[in-house]
Amino acid sequence: MPSYTAPTKDMQFLLHDMLNVSASDIPGYDELDRDFTAAILDEAGKISVEVLAPLNAVGDHEGCALENGVVRTPAGFKAAYDQMREGGWMGLDADPEYGGQGMPYLMGSAVGEMFVSANMAFNMYQGLTHGAYSAIHAHGTEQQKATYLPNMIEGRWSGTMNLTEPHCGTDLGLIRTKAEPQDDGSYRITGQKIWISAGEHDLSENIIHLVLAKIPGGPDGVKGISLFIVPKFLVNDDGSLGARNSVTCGGLESKMGIHGNATCVMNHDGAVGYLVGEPHKGMRAMFTMMNEARLGVGLQGYAQGVVAYQNALGFAQDRLQGRDVTGVKNPDGPADPIIVHPDVRRNLLMQKSFVEGARAFVFWGAQMIDRAKRLEDADADAMISLLTPVIKGFLTDKGFETTVLAQQTLGGSGFTKEWGLEQFVRDARITMIYEGTNGIQSLDLVGRKLPQNGGKTIMAFFEMVKGFLKENEGHAELKAGFLDPLKAASKDLQAAGMYFMSEGLKNPNAALSGSYDFMHLFGHVSLGLMWAQMAKASYAALEAGASDEEFYKTKLATGRFHMAHQLPATAMHLARIRSGAEPVMTLDAANF
Amino acid sequence: MPSYTAPTKDMQFLLHDMLNVSASDIPGYDELDRDFTAAILDEAGKISVEVLAPLNAVGDHEGCALENGVVRTPAGFKAAYDQMREGGWMGLDADPEYGGQGMPYLMGSAVGEMFVSANMAFNMYQGLTHGAYSAIHAHGTEQQKATYLPNMIEGRWSGTMNLTEPHCGTDLGLIRTKAEPQDDGSYRITGQKIWISAGEHDLSENIIHLVLAKIPGGPDGVKGISLFIVPKFLVNDDGSLGARNSVTCGGLESKMGIHGNATCVMNHDGAVGYLVGEPHKGMRAMFTMMNEARLGVGLQGYAQGVVAYQNALGFAQDRLQGRDVTGVKNPDGPADPIIVHPDVRRNLLMQKSFVEGARAFVFWGAQMIDRAKRLEDADADAMISLLTPVIKGFLTDKGFETTVLAQQTLGGSGFTKEWGLEQFVRDARITMIYEGTNGIQSLDLVGRKLPQNGGKTIMAFFEMVKGFLKENEGHAELKAGFLDPLKAASKDLQAAGMYFMSEGLKNPNAALSGSYDFMHLFGHVSLGLMWAQMAKASYAALEAGASDEEFYKTKLATGRFHMAHQLPATAMHLARIRSGAEPVMTLDAANF
Repeated sequence: MPSYTAPTKDMQFLLHDMLNVSASDIPGYDELDRDFTAAILDEAGKISVEVLAPLNAVGDHEGCALENGVVRTPAGFKAAYDQMREGGWMGLDADPEYGGQGMPYLMGSAVGEMFVSANMAFNMYQGLTHGAYSAIHAHGTEQQKATYLPNMIEGRWSGTMNLTEPHCGTDLGLIRTKAEPQDDGSYRITGQKIWISAGEHDLSENIIHLVLAKIPGGPDGVKGISLFIVPKFLVNDDGSLGARNSVTCGGLESKMGIHGNATCVMNHDGAVGYLVGEPHKGMRAMFTMMNEARLGVGLQGYAQGVVAYQNALGFAQDRLQGRDVTGVKNPDGPADPIIVHPDVRRNLLMQKSFVEGARAFVFWGAQMIDRAKRLEDADADAMISLLTPVIKGFLTDKGFETTVLAQQTLGGSGFTKEWGLEQFVRDARITMIYEGTNGIQSLDLVGRKLPQNGGKTIMAFFEMVKGFLKENEGHAELKAGFLDPLKAASKDLQAAGMYFMSEGLKNPNAALSGSYDFMHLFGHVSLGLMWAQMAKASYAALEAGASDEEFYKTKLATGRFHMAHQLPATAMHLARIRSGAEPVMTLDAANF
Repeated sequence: MPSYTAPTKDMQFLLHDMLNVSASDIPGYDELDRDFTAAILDEAGKISVEVLAPLNAVGDHEGCALENGVVRTPAGFKAAYDQMREGGWMGLDADPEYGGQGMPYLMGSAVGEMFVSANMAFNMYQGLTHGAYSAIHAHGTEQQKATYLPNMIEGRWSGTMNLTEPHCGTDLGLIRTKAEPQDDGSYRITGQKIWISAGEHDLSENIIHLVLAKIPGGPDGVKGISLFIVPKFLVNDDGSLGARNSVTCGGLESKMGIHGNATCVMNHDGAVGYLVGEPHKGMRAMFTMMNEARLGVGLQGYAQGVVAYQNALGFAQDRLQGRDVTGVKNPDGPADPIIVHPDVRRNLLMQKSFVEGARAFVFWGAQMIDRAKRLEDADADAMISLLTPVIKGFLTDKGFETTVLAQQTLGGSGFTKEWGLEQFVRDARITMIYEGTNGIQSLDLVGRKLPQNGGKTIMAFFEMVKGFLKENEGHAELKAGFLDPLKAASKDLQAAGMYFMSEGLKNPNAALSGSYDFMHLFGHVSLGLMWAQMAKASYAALEAGASDEEFYKTKLATGRFHMAHQLPATAMHLARIRSGAEPVMTLDAANF
């Protein structure tokens, strides 16, 4: 069975060495001193290691079962859920006005990574609740907030997103679910929704579905979509649970991974629903949930890589096979541990350098979200909006790839269920698909986010990179190992942007044909920037005479590997982008 | 449920347009005219589509079961196996002296692709028999050949390879299984073997295990390994089955994929075994099986990509979602089929161009094997030996990647068991691991195959590419679309070889750190060469006024995509290789 270790030391490095959070001007960050964050991370690590991780394989093996309309979660999930509730983890970064702890989103991301590494399928139950909470918090009436938020923050009630229908996922303009207005101001919702994660289960007392539907007579397409609260049990005026609403689970999906999370067909048969926000303006509210969900999915992607890497490393240090070509390393044993072999090290370093870079990117992005929300900083908001598809698309592609690499480190053992690596691969796979496939992320990036604010945000990104390069060019080692490759990669990204601007205007397919490569190119530059920032922090610590020299030197060596092995990918992506629309668009659909 | 279509037209193109087989000087190739190969491919396609493919999901779902020492294969496997036997498919390319049909290895590869695409787990039962057949055929005594081969060719008996033990897979020098010599010339084999594919099952009357073991008193390490035949049932002098031998299945592995194939723990408790070849020279015989197996695994890798692509394409042509940005394509429907979207096309073309290039590579390699064997051509033998790790390592990495891309085309449906794409991903995953992980392939390539014959074989490869470029440079379109990118890629490969020569002598880790990238770089050049050859053949057909213009134009468009999108990877691999040992070797094992 795989093991999990909470990476609190690496997280502390990011919070304090790289981001220097307690010196930040973001409201609430002044509390985040080393001891305080250590205490939170230790506690979250403890419950992850002791409670959640041991249930991961159980959840995979046992899965969920639908019995007479009720979904039974795997053995142990309910007790673990209650423990999470009692620990107050579900409301960590929620609004104190409704019972949350009001911590920065950054801290929510840090503990979230641990929960996801330990047990992704389990964590989805509370993850979806958080998304629904955010939508109601941003767009609900005062009464809706008072009714639902405290219970959701407490985990007593959970939440879902009901978007997809059998004939439409991406193209939500096609949805058929109807919302008939009633005299009392409520609506009756009728239609079928599919692939609803945590749609029905036995963990919480009530489930608050957020449902996209069309009010008859509204505009066609996405402009006629409204968002509704559809509780599993109606809520009485005194807050107690009332009648069972007519929203039921019609079936569970049999799927490749995340077996511990119930993926439900949800049938709404005239279910009572309450409008959130304005009629026909549901897409805006939906995107509140969706953007949060996309960041969360990016986190899931690399978090699966984190735990997979840990187990690959353990195997590589234990497994004796072959000898170091430059001289025996383990003379008392029958062979050397496989970590002596260059290709095993290369594989491990691909994993290690990615997950550490990805974590930095997500933490850095979370800080940007806190800046946007807590300082109402529109530039920060635009920047995280630009980067959201990169975080979702790039980190899940690479996160999945990392689980595959980790599985490979184990050779044949990696293919067996016994060692558990294959579950990380199967679970990570969904992250490239849900909340908008990565192809959709790349369209969002190139079609909507690049042109936003007349291109000002992407220019601000380039300025930020340029500023960092200039500010630090005096540091010779930093320059040679990190800044120079970052500069080259950033130039490739700019060249790709220029290509889109000049060619995309003439032919939108010239830009769209390269959107996926652009997303990866952007991801590489972003992680390159993160590694340069981590390297800067590490050199600074070493130059200040930090006691834990090995830690910072390891960080630098890992970063140098990353720059040498990952950054050369940017030229490849640029070359593909520049080949334009012709190779992609020539073939007739019938001739594929 | 996924479907499968036999790609006979593409295969005929390779056999006749590209390889021009019936004009070849290889003995037996003169028979391979268009009608003859069409008849064989059609028959193989028919049984693949009608018998094997429908059992693929059944095998995955049901798996194998061990009951009182007997392994029960999934429902329908036995009947299908008998049908394959009756069709004579198992002896297609086997020696006529023992009842085989004596067809070229090339034809075995072509029909093999179909069987694997249709049902990989099923086909492994006969695939392993073929490997064991080859080892006995090459190294057995006349009596052993007469005893075992006819029954194995007929499929009445099946075969296995018993190599791995719990503490050693790659490092076979560590094996502990003992072979005690007996007075009658036989041996008693004792030890435990694991991960034995098709080790025990109910399809054949007898199972012929080929087992690596050590004769006490022999040299240490791999120089003391011998190969033995260990039949499940002993064979009487008259050829009838005798006593049950003491080799038994101790358990089945629970694993990520290929559930329809039994992966067995095999316990040898003083089992009767017969030496194959000379004592302590078992590794040579083992490599006869292993090299064949590696080529077969390379084929498995891309063959899973073939069927995955077919199903992704079907989905993309049917699924209506969104509109073509350049204008509505399906005005009568609620949306356009997703194949109109550039990123969906890009994804499909990545799949299509890979599987067609990989098929060409495997067919071309199979022709090289026929040349080596049937003309006793030592140069051809050296060339296929050089290319075997590339075929195994590159085609399985990319084949797996292709199944993942295909799954992605289906979005959420790709993650469900219902659509079946996820099974192709899980089944393809093992091909990167077994018969030597792809990391081991890259070591074999760089450490053993590159230096073979004093580097003459790799030089011959470069000469071949150069010759092709020179011979065809007068064709302007071929040059621009195919020869120029191939030339650039080939220069990158040569530069990498030079780097290994100059740096690897000083520090072997400088070469070993880049071995995996070198394998991929080599793979890209090889597939680039294949696409250039296919393009040449397509231009020739068009210029000769071929009736099926669309077919050849499609081939050219697919090839141009391949060159534009895949070949830029070579510069990335070269850059990584040139970063050398430092990034990979710096970190202490304890600091990972």
